[in-house]
Amino acid sequence: MSLPSIDSFLSALQQQLGDAAVQTGAAVEARFHTDWSGQPPVAPLALVRPRSTEEVAAVLRLCHAHRIAVVPQGGLTGLAGGAVPVQGCVALSLERMNAMEAVDARTGLVTVQAGVTLQAVQEAAVAAGMVFGVDLGARGSCQIGGNVSTNAGGNGVLQHGMMREQVLGLEVVLADGTVLPMLRPMLKNNTGYDLKQFFIGAEGTLGVITRVLLRLRPMPQAKATALVAVPHFDAALAVLQRMQGRFGNSVAAFELMWDSFVQASIQWQKLQAPLAERHPLLALIDVDGKDEASLRDAVEEALGEAMEAGEVADAVIAQSHTQARTLWKLREAPAELNTQMHPPINFDVSLPQADIGRFAQAIQADFDARWPGHHTLFFGHVGDGNLHVSTDGATVRGECDAVEAALYAQVERFHGSVSAEHGIGLHKKPFLHASRTPQELAAMRAIKAALDPLNLMNPGKVFDL
Amino acid sequence: MSLPSIDSFLSALQQQLGDAAVQTGAAVEARFHTDWSGQPPVAPLALVRPRSTEEVAAVLRLCHAHRIAVVPQGGLTGLAGGAVPVQGCVALSLERMNAMEAVDARTGLVTVQAGVTLQAVQEAAVAAGMVFGVDLGARGSCQIGGNVSTNAGGNGVLQHGMMREQVLGLEVVLADGTVLPMLRPMLKNNTGYDLKQFFIGAEGTLGVITRVLLRLRPMPQAKATALVAVPHFDAALAVLQRMQGRFGNSVAAFELMWDSFVQASIQWQKLQAPLAERHPLLALIDVDGKDEASLRDAVEEALGEAMEAGEVADAVIAQSHTQARTLWKLREAPAELNTQMHPPINFDVSLPQADIGRFAQAIQADFDARWPGHHTLFFGHVGDGNLHVSTDGATVRGECDAVEAALYAQVERFHGSVSAEHGIGLHKKPFLHASRTPQELAAMRAIKAALDPLNLMNPGKVFDL
Repeated sequence: MSLPSIDSFLSALQQQLGDAAVQTGAAVEARFHTDWSGQPPVAPLALVRPRSTEEVAAVLRLCHAHRIAVVPQGGLTGLAGGAVPVQGCVALSLERMNAMEAVDARTGLVTVQAGVTLQAVQEAAVAAGMVFGVDLGARGSCQIGGNVSTNAGGNGVLQHGMMREQVLGLEVVLADGTVLPMLRPMLKNNTGYDLKQFFIGAEGTLGVITRVLLRLRPMPQAKATALVAVPHFDAALAVLQRMQGRFGNSVAAFELMWDSFVQASIQWQKLQAPLAERHPLLALIDVDGKDEASLRDAVEEALGEAMEAGEVADAVIAQSHTQARTLWKLREAPAELNTQMHPPINFDVSLPQADIGRFAQAIQADFDARWPGHHTLFFGHVGDGNLHVSTDGATVRGECDAVEAALYAQVERFHGSVSAEHGIGLHKKPFLHASRTPQELAAMRAIKAALDPLNLMNPGKVFDL
Repeated sequence: MSLPSIDSFLSALQQQLGDAAVQTGAAVEARFHTDWSGQPPVAPLALVRPRSTEEVAAVLRLCHAHRIAVVPQGGLTGLAGGAVPVQGCVALSLERMNAMEAVDARTGLVTVQAGVTLQAVQEAAVAAGMVFGVDLGARGSCQIGGNVSTNAGGNGVLQHGMMREQVLGLEVVLADGTVLPMLRPMLKNNTGYDLKQFFIGAEGTLGVITRVLLRLRPMPQAKATALVAVPHFDAALAVLQRMQGRFGNSVAAFELMWDSFVQASIQWQKLQAPLAERHPLLALIDVDGKDEASLRDAVEEALGEAMEAGEVADAVIAQSHTQARTLWKLREAPAELNTQMHPPINFDVSLPQADIGRFAQAIQADFDARWPGHHTLFFGHVGDGNLHVSTDGATVRGECDAVEAALYAQVERFHGSVSAEHGIGLHKKPFLHASRTPQELAAMRAIKAALDPLNLMNPGKVFDL
């Protein structure tokens, strides 16, 4: 495109939205150049910060007419590079679309603009006497639109499902500016294709999410937290099955930590060891219920039975909220990864649940052989089949690419997923083939071409055309 | 297409699958000509009953080469006409693909061919010590592939969600015979578009579902059933909110029956009245728990509080399984609709939950004015926002079309859905516009054209191109 044409595009943009909502060139703040993924920063042609769906539609119509790519941006906390600008694009930040439009406590529904933070939704839910089903570390910065676009996971998946299962409706603007108002507040709505599903997890490649209708969940009246030492992975699965058999969907969390992770966490965060001895694995278990005391008794009884069955070697049940927080502190080591590893090589993979133990063993053996002395931590939302792995780049001669290739090769061998919850973005694009067949990728490209024939929406993310 | 070409197509079909798997012309049994919707029967050009995914792919490749339409058929229990053959089509029945391939009790996963009945999955789940999340009246005949294709609802939605939320993976054959093996057994799998979502609820218009990976749910150890009389709709919602606030996701059913329905049910099924007096509304409530006696006590306590708050006028809690079944019998009147109404005009609509009471009143008033003496029943899965309405055609001068138009006009006015759980098929195609904007329909057509460019998959269902 010739420069005069770009100039006329930019002035049309400023005319449409007003100067305050448009920044161009060097005036675009650096924070919009990349996200938490560590991908190299890219300056967009312009940054727009619309305040309404109508303004988003106007921007997209204009970009469509001028064949300018659009990269939607939420809280920029993504770990896969999905919101990093591409050369010559308009970065479309939703941060000014942060209205909490409606909270209906009676029917447990919330309607928000896409730029509202996750934490704001969580707080609105609690104020209405309910809870929101998704929680993750970036809650204060990440935005609902980004959570939907990446189908965010986090700590509540075991009980409430991923972000997809919290979404009752979406308003989306397509590449040509068409608005799809899929916001009818019904749990059940079988009227043709459930279009909103197409945009959940699409990482902004099919349209811009502008408004979201979310369902809330009942607030549990009591919660029990236990830290449980198990001798091996199959015992951990047996404990999970036992707890779910007894407490059903009230098992709110089942996080597993391998000993290497536990030791790193204790050291990095200067914690006291939670149990007298070291064990191969520790499970953090949350259970919801009606009454603290009787719930603790029931959890103690279930864990006692598990101990008799040889599934549990030791356990502690929190006697207070403070003690529960102390136990959960052990799980918060990931916040230290960036300062303690040089650099951390982080993985977010999913595996058939029964195979997670064997997968971790295979990785450990593989890395032991190739990088003796490597420092690798295993932990994750094992109740969901989701394992996180972090390897210290300094302990593998900085061979980050080789570590990635080795791990994803094992994921492919175990028929796992190279991305459980973080998405593909730019970062995992080279490995997508390990979890998807060429036929599946062709079907995705056909969908992309159908909804965005000019390939203007977040081009080059997830897959190349 | 000329006749010689059809002959060569049919002989190629028979050569591919063997004579036993192919019937043509008058040899096709009448049961494959229509479904439970009452749509006029249509004889297909041929009926094929493949035994494997490979055979399905071979059929679709052949149909694609000869430009022959394909109508997938499951148990033919659909109420919207989605599986009724179209002129000149191949009807593709999945009934021979009824293998229960794998049941993994430890991780709660089941893999089945698409032709397995819902009941067979339910029984396999129970044999593995778990339950399957979807249940509906046609369980003995309907097939899992059809349940997925229509995103079936039923009695378990409040607790476990629709069929969509039970599906972890799908194998689908596209119109050109391409097989998409989206069967990785992971709860979390953010690797590009979640393609399987596109086929759930697509009513066979995007491909043929051949295998399904399902998740099971923990089996509740105890269940309490209560029949609760409430004075008005808002009180019913208050009771639901109260029960969910106390029992969370353990509230397994919340079915509401208006008095007209209750009286018809008592009369048709020759039941004893369950309560001493008549009430405007009765709610059937199931709650899961750990222990029958303490659960009944807790439900009684909660209902006692609701009574003090004026939300409940009378209630009975089942003291045995037999009594629970007797209470649930009241909800089974719909099985009598076809013999008791002449004909029944049935509706399956969804509304913003808070508006269901006002919607029912509006319909009643509307019909009272236009068809004095009409007999109309209101009932439904109100916990899910799903209302069923049945009007006796004999009491509205047989003006079935006018009754439909009047009801769907109110659905549009209340921003509801013309199909909560039955789908669109042929039957509701004229009313789809009441729940979807032209822009949404255009996006659906674009998706359809992307995955089935020759419009061979179940053409003319859901929408016209």
